[in-house]
Amino acid sequence: MLSARGAVRQMHEYHPPLSRRVGLCLDFNENTDGCSPQVLERIRAITAEDLVRYPEREPAEKIAAEHLGLEPEQVLLTNGVDEAIHLLCQAYLEPEHEVIVVTPTFSMYEIYAEATGARVVRVQCECDFRFPFKKVLHAITPATRLIAVASPNNPTGSVATRDQLMQITKAARHAAFLVDEAYFDFYGETVIPDTRRTQNLFVARTFSKAHGLAGLRIGILAGTREQMPVVRRVSSPYSVNAVALLTLPVALADREFVTGYAQEVKQGRARVEQTLRNLAIHSWPSHANFLLLRIGECHREFVAAMRERSILVRDRSTDPGCDGCVRITIGTAGQVDRLLAALREVAAELKPGHEVTA
Amino acid sequence: MLSARGAVRQMHEYHPPLSRRVGLCLDFNENTDGCSPQVLERIRAITAEDLVRYPEREPAEKIAAEHLGLEPEQVLLTNGVDEAIHLLCQAYLEPEHEVIVVTPTFSMYEIYAEATGARVVRVQCECDFRFPFKKVLHAITPATRLIAVASPNNPTGSVATRDQLMQITKAARHAAFLVDEAYFDFYGETVIPDTRRTQNLFVARTFSKAHGLAGLRIGILAGTREQMPVVRRVSSPYSVNAVALLTLPVALADREFVTGYAQEVKQGRARVEQTLRNLAIHSWPSHANFLLLRIGECHREFVAAMRERSILVRDRSTDPGCDGCVRITIGTAGQVDRLLAALREVAAELKPGHEVTA
Repeated sequence: MLSARGAVRQMHEYHPPLSRRVGLCLDFNENTDGCSPQVLERIRAITAEDLVRYPEREPAEKIAAEHLGLEPEQVLLTNGVDEAIHLLCQAYLEPEHEVIVVTPTFSMYEIYAEATGARVVRVQCECDFRFPFKKVLHAITPATRLIAVASPNNPTGSVATRDQLMQITKAARHAAFLVDEAYFDFYGETVIPDTRRTQNLFVARTFSKAHGLAGLRIGILAGTREQMPVVRRVSSPYSVNAVALLTLPVALADREFVTGYAQEVKQGRARVEQTLRNLAIHSWPSHANFLLLRIGECHREFVAAMRERSILVRDRSTDPGCDGCVRITIGTAGQVDRLLAALREVAAELKPGHEVTA
Repeated sequence: MLSARGAVRQMHEYHPPLSRRVGLCLDFNENTDGCSPQVLERIRAITAEDLVRYPEREPAEKIAAEHLGLEPEQVLLTNGVDEAIHLLCQAYLEPEHEVIVVTPTFSMYEIYAEATGARVVRVQCECDFRFPFKKVLHAITPATRLIAVASPNNPTGSVATRDQLMQITKAARHAAFLVDEAYFDFYGETVIPDTRRTQNLFVARTFSKAHGLAGLRIGILAGTREQMPVVRRVSSPYSVNAVALLTLPVALADREFVTGYAQEVKQGRARVEQTLRNLAIHSWPSHANFLLLRIGECHREFVAAMRERSILVRDRSTDPGCDGCVRITIGTAGQVDRLLAALREVAAELKPGHEVTA
């Protein structure tokens, strides 16, 4: 009888609650307003010839590298950030290694790391979900082979400074250091230029958030010229589909779409924060297109009550340090109006947050 | 300084010669005539809403399962057959394991197996590239954990019988047995129904060949209800993009497109075989949309001379047992005309195959 690897039998499963998403979807931090119309136009122009051939990644990688101010060898297009994480785990991790993740965070770091049999070392955020810089430094051992930090972090919205990130690369030269900049477009600070000279630094970007292309599955992994050939070696040559590759130059070129959307989200985020204060619901400062709310014991009822109003939000109460927390994606001004109306109604009904002190 | 895993440092690299493919592409066994017009129509109807959301695999998996006469739990949609192979390697292989591959064959079995650190055991085809059934049985040891067989095989076009495949599943109950049916549509025999009751059998299918959708990156991995949850556990929930998921039902429904194309290819294949006989160039019986030709010492010149005539074919001379061999994809009747004219010219020029006895 066939049996799976031990590490696979023990790993956590990831079941994103994707099915039957009907209504205003503020549950996956996607762009709630669509994508660049120019991307749609490019897709309408796709021919049979574009589809029959195996996708060729290099031309789009060259364009992505130019956009980021990097050399083409430094850039690998990936099947979303998921594949970028997966490749780093495969390229560097053996079962005797340790992986440092800052919790709470995006769950795929742990999942792919566990699949290799490596030991996951969880470093909890500081008070108010601040980046636990000193604790990360302290957690580094000779066995550390991967450190993954999302900045802005999901689901907290908190960030690490460039100085902190660079100090970590120096303290762990023997480890791959992934800085996941999935929410970069809502924040604006980046360590991408540092991949030119920091041999163990990798930076991931995605088109799934601000660009509104989660369905296309495209991300970017940037790293040094020394390390990227290693990662490329474990990557599948065809993991990114032709539609994504053909639309990437268009998506990158329409900067107005992304900056305009990010601007609208940031204004909306401030409005939601103000309303939450008025409702005495605690939320944490966020540099991304979402807010994490401390709803308290009635978090399940809160999510259900929002769903009754056709608004999907994400219960994050099982994330480490997130008891009673719910994450809400911020959308357009009109969607924020709708969200605020629902929030006021639900708050009046449930009195969320009132049993805890923030 | 960061260094990669030992297995990664040692693994073979796969560099498909994809760049600058101009002319009649008979080098990657793609559909040379496009895809179903209904697929293109579906793509033209794609909306921003289809793109902004993370792709949901389950509805398309249900449709694929119905098409194959299987239960939905038995079917996983994958990012091409590549991901299916990758997932099996990740789910089952430890460094102390052995993987049996029948050479020459599709290179990704070895590449993904090597990345796990497992030992690859190569079983060479019999004379005339016949399936080495007894040698495979003989190669099975208690350490065998994966056996990969393509039927029809690439680049040879040869097949294994259902009886042989079933005997292998019985002789290696402790190993995952992958039957890669990428070229099924040109052959017609399948072991898909056997995944209902054979606990260690997996079957892969692709939309990259007969369906003409290599650019979309979509494949199917079928297995038993006992084993598929294991494979699903290591799979990324979003590896298949929304465009592929939305077009899959349309591609499956337009059976006429696929059967018509397969019919035309088979007729063309017979014509090419006849011409090759007339030119005294040896080829082997093929059940797929390609032929493997013994060109001999001038194989490089042959490929170059075809390229001069704007026809791309694939040098396979470095594959085990394939000295001097070139693989040519068979296309439509008109493309076969063009191929035959070029073959006659190049044969007159180079006298291929004349230095070897077939």
